[in-house]
Amino acid sequence: MRRKIKLGQPLLIGYALVDLVGTILLMLPIASTEPGATDLMQAWFTATSALTVTGLTVVPTLSHWTTFGHVVIIVLMQVGGLGVMVLVTIIMTMLGLRIHLGQRMLITEDRNTYSMSGVIRLVRHIILLALVIQGIGAIIMGFLIPDVWEDGIIQGMLFLAFHAVSAFNGAGFDLTGQSLESFRHNFGVNLVIVVLIFLGSLGFVVLQELFMIRNWQRLSLHSRMVLLVTGVIILVGSVFFLTSEFNHLLEGTPLEDKIMTSVFQTVTRTAGFVTIPVTSWNEPFIFLMIIMMFIGASPGSVGGGIKTTTLGTVVLAVWSLVRGKKVVVFFEREIAPKSVSKAFAVVVMAGMLVMVSTLLLMTVEDLPLMPVMFEVVSALSTVGLSMGITSQLSPFGLILLGLLMLIGRIGIFTTVMILAGREKRQSHFMKENILIG
Amino acid sequence: MRRKIKLGQPLLIGYALVDLVGTILLMLPIASTEPGATDLMQAWFTATSALTVTGLTVVPTLSHWTTFGHVVIIVLMQVGGLGVMVLVTIIMTMLGLRIHLGQRMLITEDRNTYSMSGVIRLVRHIILLALVIQGIGAIIMGFLIPDVWEDGIIQGMLFLAFHAVSAFNGAGFDLTGQSLESFRHNFGVNLVIVVLIFLGSLGFVVLQELFMIRNWQRLSLHSRMVLLVTGVIILVGSVFFLTSEFNHLLEGTPLEDKIMTSVFQTVTRTAGFVTIPVTSWNEPFIFLMIIMMFIGASPGSVGGGIKTTTLGTVVLAVWSLVRGKKVVVFFEREIAPKSVSKAFAVVVMAGMLVMVSTLLLMTVEDLPLMPVMFEVVSALSTVGLSMGITSQLSPFGLILLGLLMLIGRIGIFTTVMILAGREKRQSHFMKENILIG
Ligand SMILES: [K+]
Ligand SMILES: [K+]
Repeated sequence: MRRKIKLGQPLLIGYALVDLVGTILLMLPIASTEPGATDLMQAWFTATSALTVTGLTVVPTLSHWTTFGHVVIIVLMQVGGLGVMVLVTIIMTMLGLRIHLGQRMLITEDRNTYSMSGVIRLVRHIILLALVIQGIGAIIMGFLIPDVWEDGIIQGMLFLAFHAVSAFNGAGFDLTGQSLESFRHNFGVNLVIVVLIFLGSLGFVVLQELFMIRNWQRLSLHSRMVLLVTGVIILVGSVFFLTSEFNHLLEGTPLEDKIMTSVFQTVTRTAGFVTIPVTSWNEPFIFLMIIMMFIGASPGSVGGGIKTTTLGTVVLAVWSLVRGKKVVVFFEREIAPKSVSKAFAVVVMAGMLVMVSTLLLMTVEDLPLMPVMFEVVSALSTVGLSMGITSQLSPFGLILLGLLMLIGRIGIFTTVMILAGREKRQSHFMKENILIG
Repeated sequence: MRRKIKLGQPLLIGYALVDLVGTILLMLPIASTEPGATDLMQAWFTATSALTVTGLTVVPTLSHWTTFGHVVIIVLMQVGGLGVMVLVTIIMTMLGLRIHLGQRMLITEDRNTYSMSGVIRLVRHIILLALVIQGIGAIIMGFLIPDVWEDGIIQGMLFLAFHAVSAFNGAGFDLTGQSLESFRHNFGVNLVIVVLIFLGSLGFVVLQELFMIRNWQRLSLHSRMVLLVTGVIILVGSVFFLTSEFNHLLEGTPLEDKIMTSVFQTVTRTAGFVTIPVTSWNEPFIFLMIIMMFIGASPGSVGGGIKTTTLGTVVLAVWSLVRGKKVVVFFEREIAPKSVSKAFAVVVMAGMLVMVSTLLLMTVEDLPLMPVMFEVVSALSTVGLSMGITSQLSPFGLILLGLLMLIGRIGIFTTVMILAGREKRQSHFMKENILIG
């Protein structure tokens, strides 16, 4: 038990260190195209946004940063995205999920401990898998975007690598100045980005199982929950966008283009790329996006939010309650009551944080509800979609959003670790009931 | 166990019957000042709004209904408000709260059962207490509003009784046509209404203890939680309104007037009266009101929402988590883990209902986020404050709001009953972990 809690501290320190180094590197004059150094607040916000793979920006990524700056951002995105993948995957084994690494398991079954070689093997597996997926994505995009080579091989490869890394890590940073709007009608590029985002959002355990098992019946309960909830969200979001914008934003384009644009605008809920600017969307879809961002990606993935499994568990639990059932059942397995309690706690904590932050930001920045709540959820779930207010915020607002990104990236799984440690209960107080509801 | 669940059915049937009778009475030509009968939708919405003590209206209460109609509305508010007080108080004893009725307890301690005479005694206590409080309030207001007698004794008494009943039951119906705006600068009337709303929102158990015990140390954990959370909410809301509107809406009035107006606009979160129209408030306060309405009143009171005790429990539980404590402690008592789980479940269920309803209403009615979310929370928490969209909704929107009022009034405590029945767990399925967060 103790070991789990202690994991939190080196993690926090490591995170802060990388954030600091990133900030310093981005403050170097060599990182900025403009004369002199980038100021502390802008560099910190950019480094934090990259490390938490959020994607909110205060300076234009393309024009403000040099190639050096772009490489720093790539590295921060990789470290931030894959780092969390490694850490959460280790935590998941602590919670009893069995992780296959070739013939061996991460955790040695007889003694229930980790060997150093097991952890190194896991890190190698994750990095390899990520690089292969990103590489394939980048290469395919190289063929689909002929004019990417106009500025030379190096710049072309940087452009492709930047967006493949940004997509798989769900970071949403771009080198175009207006997200992926110019690729809206390039079906192939849309597809590659959607697949990269989708794979990155599933989490390592699910990816492993998908590649190695390929049999729905034999997938773990966890993987089935992830795939089902992710599928339903993408379906609901895409159909909503398609029907509500059919005669508006999507008018005059072929049907497959309409569908791809709708899917893209939905899948981006964990990444932050757009092919149509957020402020053009209809208001109900913007609100639906707030809900979809709040839900977020899956555990052990590069994305944030309360997580698909949390939503799935809560919905099943509510459904059980409504039907008067005493246990929560999913595919003929009972979900452990402790998992159910955790799910409710995570939702409520995240919800309260959104409400309080929104109220605070509305008051201090004197901005209306919709864009503020959108930006708050986007930051907390490390999505990076923006209704355009981030660049006009006061330092207070920027610090608040930056903290939300960090909490969203670290806090939620630290919470899980603390919750995971709650096996034994000790109290010297008398118990007393309080009426609820 | 079985007995508890069965309580739900007669309750639902009784509720539907009263709703039906109220609707029919309001559809009688004698109830309407206009020629012919009021149409079904308007009569149903008004009856439901009165029975659930919500206060949202689709026709002007003053001008549309006759004295007969006004009496029907008074009776519906009393039955709706006090009826729930009785029912929830009975449920609270099931959950272990000891309720004093003079020298006796509601529940006979030796056999743990209810005697019919005990329940009748409880009903008598509650009705007596409510009538005394409402009566005192009405009489005092009679002295504070000299021109109330202009239309004769009967009309004057009806006016006073209507508003005293409406305030204590947190119904928010008015006979002025513009809520209590005309009384904004009548300090005494404001004070009476605030006190009536406040007492009605505490719940019978707390009222009983306050009148009979009058000693903080000897109050039950439940009562202390209710008083503390209610106090904090009123303080935060009032200070927020006072400071944010000091140089705007409150400008040019004396300080005690400023303070009273701020307190009034906050306390109304469970009732629905205003002295300044909602649409004039600053946006951050409107959003804070959404949060305060969502929280709502206390269990066993006339008001709705997730309840003050639910918020208190959830906040304490989160605080315990953050500090790494394994149990939730309040005034040196441990809150039962079952109460904590219930609290989280209630918050999440109510929150999901708000999100889905808001999205649905935005889509169907093509209205912006803020007024829709405001109206949805106002209906679900049976508050009745309005940003003015209720009167322009389509039948779909009206039915949705009507259902939310009914769910808000019945659903949340039915949920509690179902949850309360979850003592034993039975399952023939294997357990499996799902990672949360
Ligand atoms: K992102
Ligand atoms: K009300």
